[in-house]
Amino acid sequence: MVRIPKSDNPRIVIIGGGFAGIKLVKKLKNLPVQIVLFDRNNYHTFQPLLYQVATAGLEPDSIADPLRKQLEPVKNFFFRMAEVYSVDPLANTIKTEIGELSYDYLVIATGSKTNYFGNESIMDHAFPLKQIPQALDLRSHILQNFESATISENDKEKASRMNIAIVGGGPTGVEVAGALGELKKSILPKDYPELDFKNMNITLLEGTSRLLNGMSESASNRAIKYLKKFDVHVKLNTLVTSYDGHSAQLNNGETIETHTLIWAAGVQGNYPLGLPEESIVKSRLKVDRTNKLIGSENIYAIGDIATMTTEEYPNGHPMLAQVAIQQGRLLAENFKRLLHGKEPKLFEYNDKGSMATIGRNKAVADLPGNIRLGGLIAWLLWMFVHLISIIGFRNKIIVFSNWVWNYFTYDKGTRLIIRRFVPKKQKLKNEAV
Amino acid sequence: MVRIPKSDNPRIVIIGGGFAGIKLVKKLKNLPVQIVLFDRNNYHTFQPLLYQVATAGLEPDSIADPLRKQLEPVKNFFFRMAEVYSVDPLANTIKTEIGELSYDYLVIATGSKTNYFGNESIMDHAFPLKQIPQALDLRSHILQNFESATISENDKEKASRMNIAIVGGGPTGVEVAGALGELKKSILPKDYPELDFKNMNITLLEGTSRLLNGMSESASNRAIKYLKKFDVHVKLNTLVTSYDGHSAQLNNGETIETHTLIWAAGVQGNYPLGLPEESIVKSRLKVDRTNKLIGSENIYAIGDIATMTTEEYPNGHPMLAQVAIQQGRLLAENFKRLLHGKEPKLFEYNDKGSMATIGRNKAVADLPGNIRLGGLIAWLLWMFVHLISIIGFRNKIIVFSNWVWNYFTYDKGTRLIIRRFVPKKQKLKNEAV
Repeated sequence: MVRIPKSDNPRIVIIGGGFAGIKLVKKLKNLPVQIVLFDRNNYHTFQPLLYQVATAGLEPDSIADPLRKQLEPVKNFFFRMAEVYSVDPLANTIKTEIGELSYDYLVIATGSKTNYFGNESIMDHAFPLKQIPQALDLRSHILQNFESATISENDKEKASRMNIAIVGGGPTGVEVAGALGELKKSILPKDYPELDFKNMNITLLEGTSRLLNGMSESASNRAIKYLKKFDVHVKLNTLVTSYDGHSAQLNNGETIETHTLIWAAGVQGNYPLGLPEESIVKSRLKVDRTNKLIGSENIYAIGDIATMTTEEYPNGHPMLAQVAIQQGRLLAENFKRLLHGKEPKLFEYNDKGSMATIGRNKAVADLPGNIRLGGLIAWLLWMFVHLISIIGFRNKIIVFSNWVWNYFTYDKGTRLIIRRFVPKKQKLKNEAV
Repeated sequence: MVRIPKSDNPRIVIIGGGFAGIKLVKKLKNLPVQIVLFDRNNYHTFQPLLYQVATAGLEPDSIADPLRKQLEPVKNFFFRMAEVYSVDPLANTIKTEIGELSYDYLVIATGSKTNYFGNESIMDHAFPLKQIPQALDLRSHILQNFESATISENDKEKASRMNIAIVGGGPTGVEVAGALGELKKSILPKDYPELDFKNMNITLLEGTSRLLNGMSESASNRAIKYLKKFDVHVKLNTLVTSYDGHSAQLNNGETIETHTLIWAAGVQGNYPLGLPEESIVKSRLKVDRTNKLIGSENIYAIGDIATMTTEEYPNGHPMLAQVAIQQGRLLAENFKRLLHGKEPKLFEYNDKGSMATIGRNKAVADLPGNIRLGGLIAWLLWMFVHLISIIGFRNKIIVFSNWVWNYFTYDKGTRLIIRRFVPKKQKLKNEAV
């Protein structure tokens, strides 16, 4: 049994402290309900800036915020750091790593995880970029390879350690490619004067015919142009079929020699076991217009994990922070209406636009009203939007000072290997000794 | 073979990028020598602030600075991230994890490591505080125990998870105890309203009859007074005889129930194998007044690892950053004199004083001329000295903004469990599955 005090108010259990989960908790602040939030971490991760942790631009602590601190003002709130394994919708209980708990209402806000599409060689050797420890592992791995390149006497191995391939031309892939291009251009050559950076190739691979599929044609084209300025090779209509940790096979017969393959090619839903089968569609949870799970009366799903079809979005909404935040806010309002016996409101996504940044000084932005921005103005807008969105005032200050520092010094401060990255298989072998 | 280009200049190999090592490299900047620096990390650690990382006051990246970046302006400089295993003084070579390398001059600046005085139960279960990953593990462990305390139904276990014992009343022990006192007083109760902080005991244990043995009586007495304000129990003349991870046995027959024992009771030298036996005295390296190793003609030792006796310091110098910095600086000058055929200068320690801080607003400082400061003025001085000493301008800004933030908000930003701490024994068991 998870130890939570008894209460006369209905208990709302929320799984996941991402954008959707914390917005929901905050908006439930003064309602006569008992709120229990589960997350496997004690912090919220600001995922849009994960790529900057991986590329030594920001320290991990500045994109994370302790959930307890963030949600301190909420009454009747209990946080439990634990993984949730399964739901029993008939008994209205969940099973977690710290025991069972009953709920009156359950909200699943568990987001998404990396999808390798069943390719085991890629799963074993590629670097995902969804969580802070993964970003730190990638940062360490890239720097360790540069250290190794300086002592390698084999030119082929040297190049393979310097090369980086990124799979997936969505915002994460494009942003990480741009940041790596900047590292190659302005920073790494100063750190490693012994290495010839003409031998370093950064390649961005995308399976479809364009980058940034969720954005306008204009944004896609600009992204390619900007990436070229940072010397990133873009290969469209190209898939990686296998990867052994040193060389990646492409579907066009080519091979890329690289010790670092970053996998940003797909995500899938990340939900607990036990939910009604009819509610699971392509690894996400099907919900009605009030975010209520299909086939359930008291279970809801919000954010990336939820898939809701509307007239305007017949294939569901994009997996974006804005959708998650708006769904969290509306669900809180609907809980309030429920307590007052009122009918719930239907969700309508208010698209505030989308954007992606590509290295220093460059970004693309699609804004409502068909406004397409690029270059410096989009970059300034991107920075402003991310600064106001990042959770926690302290984080805003630290991120802002880092950006100002990076901008004027052409430097990134955190090229640190705090914990060496040890590949999983090697770790098992070594630690068994 | 470690790959380093051939050079007509003599090769100086330096082991360790601490205060002594980097000062030496910087001061050798334009001399006609080839410099090779080895460190097992790619960064310099600002050890005096490690305790703030452990107590959630600073992020790890802000007390570390990449060695390559720091030493970029130095000509003929090569950095190699590798552990050095042994020295062959007859062949003038060292053995490292990346191969062998010959030297003309060798400088050992490897500092100190934790000394458990052979007590295995303490070595297995206590938390040392000498490296950044150790500080992060301690931070995670403390926070994980508070998370566990919230769900524990056993009052004794709950208290044991909240309690913290610190062994060793030197600067590290005193500073970490003060910082934990501050966490208990102003921060943790807000995060964990479910817990009763009257049950949390912070105990500082010291084997001798006073705290801060290297400082004045006045500093020792003030430290005790200040620690009381932060509700830290100080036990003098008390030793821990064993610790099983849950309860610590004291030499006075008492027992302290705690899941967290911080070990700051002793350090020992940390040198490579193969050095002449006559040069090793109580785990440190005996050097003459020019920091040349006894029994050698071209091996030097500087900083914490070296022990040099002078008239004023018949038992050797204190293990302080200032000694290390001054020895690094003088050795660089003596190398220059050597190249010009001049006699080396003898080392004379210029004592600039010592200080320790105890939580918010309080510190003690002993300055030259028998000036003894305490309270707010010592605290401001402590902050100023540490800000100007920390390596890297970016770090100064980040540390300063964090301190200002902490001061005015009574908050610490980094209460994050980025990687859960898993005890070594448990890890082996789990990962073997």
